Amino acid sequence: MFVSEVFGTALLLLLGCGVVANVALPKNNGFEGGFLMVNFGWGLAVFAGVYGAYKSGAHLNPAVTFGLLANDAGEYAKGVPITVTSTLVYLAGEMVGAFLGAVLCWMAYKKQFDERGDAASLGVFSTGPQIKSTPWNLMTEIIGTFVLVFVIITFGQTPSGLGPLAVALLVVGIGASLGGPTGYAINPARDLGPRIAHALLPIPHKDDSNWGYAWIPVVGPIIGGVIAGVLANLYI
Amino acid sequence: MFVSEVFGTALLLLLGCGVVANVALPKNNGFEGGFLMVNFGWGLAVFAGVYGAYKSGAHLNPAVTFGLLANDAGEYAKGVPITVTSTLVYLAGEMVGAFLGAVLCWMAYKKQFDERGDAASLGVFSTGPQIKSTPWNLMTEIIGTFVLVFVIITFGQTPSGLGPLAVALLVVGIGASLGGPTGYAINPARDLGPRIAHALLPIPHKDDSNWGYAWIPVVGPIIGGVIAGVLANLYI
Amino acid sequence: MFVSEVFGTALLLLLGCGVVANVALPKNNGFEGGFLMVNFGWGLAVFAGVYGAYKSGAHLNPAVTFGLLANDAGEYAKGVPITVTSTLVYLAGEMVGAFLGAVLCWMAYKKQFDERGDAASLGVFSTGPQIKSTPWNLMTEIIGTFVLVFVIITFGQTPSGLGPLAVALLVVGIGASLGGPTGYAINPARDLGPRIAHALLPIPHKDDSNWGYAWIPVVGPIIGGVIAGVLANLYI
Amino acid sequence: MFVSEVFGTALLLLLGCGVVANVALPKNNGFEGGFLMVNFGWGLAVFAGVYGAYKSGAHLNPAVTFGLLANDAGEYAKGVPITVTSTLVYLAGEMVGAFLGAVLCWMAYKKQFDERGDAASLGVFSTGPQIKSTPWNLMTEIIGTFVLVFVIITFGQTPSGLGPLAVALLVVGIGASLGGPTGYAINPARDLGPRIAHALLPIPHKDDSNWGYAWIPVVGPIIGGVIAGVLANLYI
Repeated sequence: MFVSEVFGTALLLLLGCGVVANVALPKNNGFEGGFLMVNFGWGLAVFAGVYGAYKSGAHLNPAVTFGLLANDAGEYAKGVPITVTSTLVYLAGEMVGAFLGAVLCWMAYKKQFDERGDAASLGVFSTGPQIKSTPWNLMTEIIGTFVLVFVIITFGQTPSGLGPLAVALLVVGIGASLGGPTGYAINPARDLGPRIAHALLPIPHKDDSNWGYAWIPVVGPIIGGVIAGVLANLYI
Repeated sequence: MFVSEVFGTALLLLLGCGVVANVALPKNNGFEGGFLMVNFGWGLAVFAGVYGAYKSGAHLNPAVTFGLLANDAGEYAKGVPITVTSTLVYLAGEMVGAFLGAVLCWMAYKKQFDERGDAASLGVFSTGPQIKSTPWNLMTEIIGTFVLVFVIITFGQTPSGLGPLAVALLVVGIGASLGGPTGYAINPARDLGPRIAHALLPIPHKDDSNWGYAWIPVVGPIIGGVIAGVLANLYI
Repeated sequence: MFVSEVFGTALLLLLGCGVVANVALPKNNGFEGGFLMVNFGWGLAVFAGVYGAYKSGAHLNPAVTFGLLANDAGEYAKGVPITVTSTLVYLAGEMVGAFLGAVLCWMAYKKQFDERGDAASLGVFSTGPQIKSTPWNLMTEIIGTFVLVFVIITFGQTPSGLGPLAVALLVVGIGASLGGPTGYAINPARDLGPRIAHALLPIPHKDDSNWGYAWIPVVGPIIGGVIAGVLANLYI
Repeated sequence: MFVSEVFGTALLLLLGCGVVANVALPKNNGFEGGFLMVNFGWGLAVFAGVYGAYKSGAHLNPAVTFGLLANDAGEYAKGVPITVTSTLVYLAGEMVGAFLGAVLCWMAYKKQFDERGDAASLGVFSTGPQIKSTPWNLMTEIIGTFVLVFVIITFGQTPSGLGPLAVALLVVGIGASLGGPTGYAINPARDLGPRIAHALLPIPHKDDSNWGYAWIPVVGPIIGGVIAGVLANLYI
């Protein structure tokens, strides 16, 4: 379970940070490839991560874990009961995987980071607001994560058989539709793990890791996920 | 049924208006992201909305409701007979959901609306013609909605198992192919609900809500949906 | 069968020509939306058309009809034997549908055609070469149609269950990969039907319909489809 | 088996090199169509190739063959045991198919190559680094191929039923996310076969075929595939 979440979340962050690196750092084939490319990159990162974490039901996201907890769904995955221990194992796996995925991304784009170790580099790892505003940045993250977790919970009610593709497309859509103001963290591990990696990695001339903002993409998604879990429980 | 249509249509409008806000309002990651991104955003908004409204068969659109009525299909969803009451419940749920979704979109993009409260803001909420012409704008909306409702009704004849993805891709296609002249409302609630929201919300310096055009994306889609329902009835 | 092919091919051409109109004609939301948008538009046009023509197995394309004939597959669709009559009915339905779809597209984009009745208008309806060369333009159309028909015939050997989506994505891919030199007609009806429509429709200041090139996107696709049918017969 | 891999890999390279030709060579409809279009083109090239090579399990890639060998999966495809002979047959089929596909691409874009026989032409056939660095270019190819082969092996554990589409989307994602620094060969045959074709084909004024780099997209993918096979064996 732990290993599965580590693998899945590492794949998610490797490919997710990877597409931002490709678009944001010069001397890349995908440089300035546009936000739709970023949206597809993150969506397909989820796609790969969900397959990779098949053993643990592929949360890949503390907001999903907390959402299922609040939803009172009974288990986190087939045969995995919801307990304090299993919750902590999921959260730990997600954080470790996110950190490792960000490091792998840095390894894949090592020379590009070496040439461009400035403010752009944090944007590859973690999210930030286009217009700074604590309440409204929180709001955007809450709404985005609510959509993610609420719709994921309703997947089980529709016999469509798309599996990982459904989550992938949902994330493409949330990115395109709600990723404008804050860069759609919608996942505490996705933001905090790479931010720690950014702080530790030897990137030349890098800016600071913007720790003042770091709590928003953690707290916002957890709130959104919990609201989604509770509301889905009432609805379904 | 009512709650299900409200949830689904609210998701549709939150994500649908969201992608336009992202592309049309400055200080967004997706600013000027292109029309294909808008098409995918709306298509995936349908995708999320259809999952969210699984209890009511996910009409999300009065043109679909009227189309099924004209198609004489027997029921609106499994176990939901077509009656005057159920028709009104669907229409009410769609309108309330569309209004709420537009308000949620405004909340997600609050700071961007605050900075750019001019003509662009209406375009986030509602559609308008590139070249004003009552008969031909109506025609474009009729044709677009005809394709939507006709193909949705034929879905049941092909055992492809794509479920919500099929509708989502159909809407991506209609947007790319027929969204040029009028912005493809193809859904009265999608246009009227957000227009009311635009009129009521405190957006600084906003333009008027262009009520003179407002009837076209209501009447055109209803005509197109009804023609599709009748023709599909003869065809299938 | 005839009506089914008319419906499906009309949907194909309405949406297919539509996306080109959106991208190529000014005063459209999708103006200059890029070739990938055109590729998705045509692919999703196939998607809608295949659902619409579910009664006849959705050839929508004389190259597919001739390919299946050459493949000696036994029937054109479930319960439709391959005979001279059925072949002619398919071809007639495809041509009539393609013509009607092009007319519907013109109706949806009437005001845009009125404002821009010049050389761009033919490009909305029919294909043409970027570099004129009879043998190599033919070659490009033969190769593109070969891929289309060969892969469609192999679909039946893989239990993937994607149905219309598989053909749609194949057409997106062929467009992106082989649509550069000649605009990927890969379908005689898709090119000839709209060219006739272009010649007949009252578009102001329109250029001539380039009849000198018109035989290439008819003959090339038929050759490619027949080669694919024969080779697939040997292979499978 | 041999013929199946030849067909599939030829389709892969025809469409894959095709999309690069479309985007990179002037006088094409897709000229400067962007990297996302290239990513979709290659992904859908895999899609077509996997259908075409249905008889042999569609490796299309020596890194997949070596990965399955290292994974100790028992067979290469249903009824095809892993032996020295079958391994050599797969590798030979992949190389021959890749060469033939590149030649077919050149035939489809013959006039465009004739007009632009300079440095751009090699980029249509084979990959190269944006920033030259033997260890880090190798690293990028290893990571990209690891993701490809690892996730492909996990596909079997998730009952999603997407078949060829899953591989196609994975390749779209790897291209968008990890294709920046080296152009994502992630497949020795995909790079070496077309490089040989580039060296042999009569392209006017072509540059040399950059043989100094040629070993990296062969060795890197094999290393990545083998690591993926071994790790997946431990994990599953």
